[in-house]
Amino acid sequence: MEIRIVKSAGFCFGVKRAVDMAFKAAEENKGQVCTYGPIIHNPQVVEKLKAAGVAPVDEIDSNVKNILIRTHGISYELHEDLKTKNINIIDATCPFVKKAQQYAKLLKQEGYQIIILGDEKHPEVVGIRSYAGQEAIVVKDPQQLPRLKTRVGVVVQTTQPVEALQRLLSEIIKTARELKVYNTICNSTANRLKETEALAKEVDVMLVIGGRNSANTNQLARRCEAIGVKTYHIESAEELAPEWFRGVKVVGVTAGASTPDWIIKEVIEKLKGFGS
Amino acid sequence: MEIRIVKSAGFCFGVKRAVDMAFKAAEENKGQVCTYGPIIHNPQVVEKLKAAGVAPVDEIDSNVKNILIRTHGISYELHEDLKTKNINIIDATCPFVKKAQQYAKLLKQEGYQIIILGDEKHPEVVGIRSYAGQEAIVVKDPQQLPRLKTRVGVVVQTTQPVEALQRLLSEIIKTARELKVYNTICNSTANRLKETEALAKEVDVMLVIGGRNSANTNQLARRCEAIGVKTYHIESAEELAPEWFRGVKVVGVTAGASTPDWIIKEVIEKLKGFGS
Repeated sequence: MEIRIVKSAGFCFGVKRAVDMAFKAAEENKGQVCTYGPIIHNPQVVEKLKAAGVAPVDEIDSNVKNILIRTHGISYELHEDLKTKNINIIDATCPFVKKAQQYAKLLKQEGYQIIILGDEKHPEVVGIRSYAGQEAIVVKDPQQLPRLKTRVGVVVQTTQPVEALQRLLSEIIKTARELKVYNTICNSTANRLKETEALAKEVDVMLVIGGRNSANTNQLARRCEAIGVKTYHIESAEELAPEWFRGVKVVGVTAGASTPDWIIKEVIEKLKGFGS
Repeated sequence: MEIRIVKSAGFCFGVKRAVDMAFKAAEENKGQVCTYGPIIHNPQVVEKLKAAGVAPVDEIDSNVKNILIRTHGISYELHEDLKTKNINIIDATCPFVKKAQQYAKLLKQEGYQIIILGDEKHPEVVGIRSYAGQEAIVVKDPQQLPRLKTRVGVVVQTTQPVEALQRLLSEIIKTARELKVYNTICNSTANRLKETEALAKEVDVMLVIGGRNSANTNQLARRCEAIGVKTYHIESAEELAPEWFRGVKVVGVTAGASTPDWIIKEVIEKLKGFGS
């Protein structure tokens, strides 16, 4: 059975950087490190970090000595609050998310009515919005747009598809007289989707590896299913079943941005024993 | 026969202002006024102004004492050149076109790669481009876009349809990281089109009044034809033929931005004698 792997499968730049920072911080601080929420949407990585002494917390109390900010970033207010406390901040906010936060701040300073394209409740968007000010509005699609002012500024959750941004701009430009857009979409997500879809068209079975709570992994699985190829979404090699590959000539493998290399490798190794 | 007239038919704000300025200048300067090119794309108005002593010229030589700049505006270079000469400048550039020129200049100062949406050879676009600098590119549709830089600025010929701008932005945002758009489309054109299309769906025959060399009048006629209603494009009441209205219950009337009220009135008066 031939195994083909999507080139951009697995950790993106920001996630790799954050996980490396977490392991390094655990080593330097003898394990006394907390992350504000799970570092990434991958239970296996979270467990491995826990074993190294890095645990997620929901609230930052006086027991916390070292806090690692995950890729999604945190709100401006929380960041300011942390600075007043006797806590060591390890900032692993993805540099691209940091940019989106700064652009939101800039649009606010320039007096634009700010529209953020993204999922209102996603921690990344909560963070970006805090820089954009109270009046900033988060929309997922153009129907949610409020009455627009003359000058509109747009900033985007890094994992949004460009098609959503195109639809949003088409609606905004109907009435806005000045429009400033910071296209903060990270190409990494789009590339992974594109390469995954291309591979899904060539194979008999697709394996999508990643946390079941990972939005971008779920999106990969949905796109493969939409193409019509038999698709299995797994979190680890243990879930693989030999019968999935009976009579299969070519299997395609992809993985979300929060899936570590070692899980992908384990899956590949186990796959080699399967198939026709 | 019922006659229904499009509310926004005829002169737009900028054209009305320019024609008024021309007649006033003719009075004040005893007719010794030139316009750089025909003041508007309407031969009847041009003739009437000629009778008042306002004549279009193609070149500005030493015989010209008073020059009226028409609604389309002129290039930055020509404007600078005129200032050095002993010529009285009567600037009837449409204020909305003037804004587009100033926004082009601003985008240049801010270092954006400038894209102008419009007809490359249209005098308005030639003028706007002169403010945007040598590197600015004029496109009519997204296929003409060059390789884009990171920061793209867009300014629009005032008479472009918003759909063309939507298509352009959808293409640009695929690659640009920062996009600043000055939506300089004049609502007057869009309104006239919308109201004309609405009326065209309700009547038996549409009359479109305006110069055959007027782009916006031609567009009105094409849209009516596309709706499937019998459409006649005329320049003046003289062209009306009684047989066009035999058995007609309702006739719709619209007119381009360069069609004066007095021509529309003449047509209406003549129409009253026709029909079933």
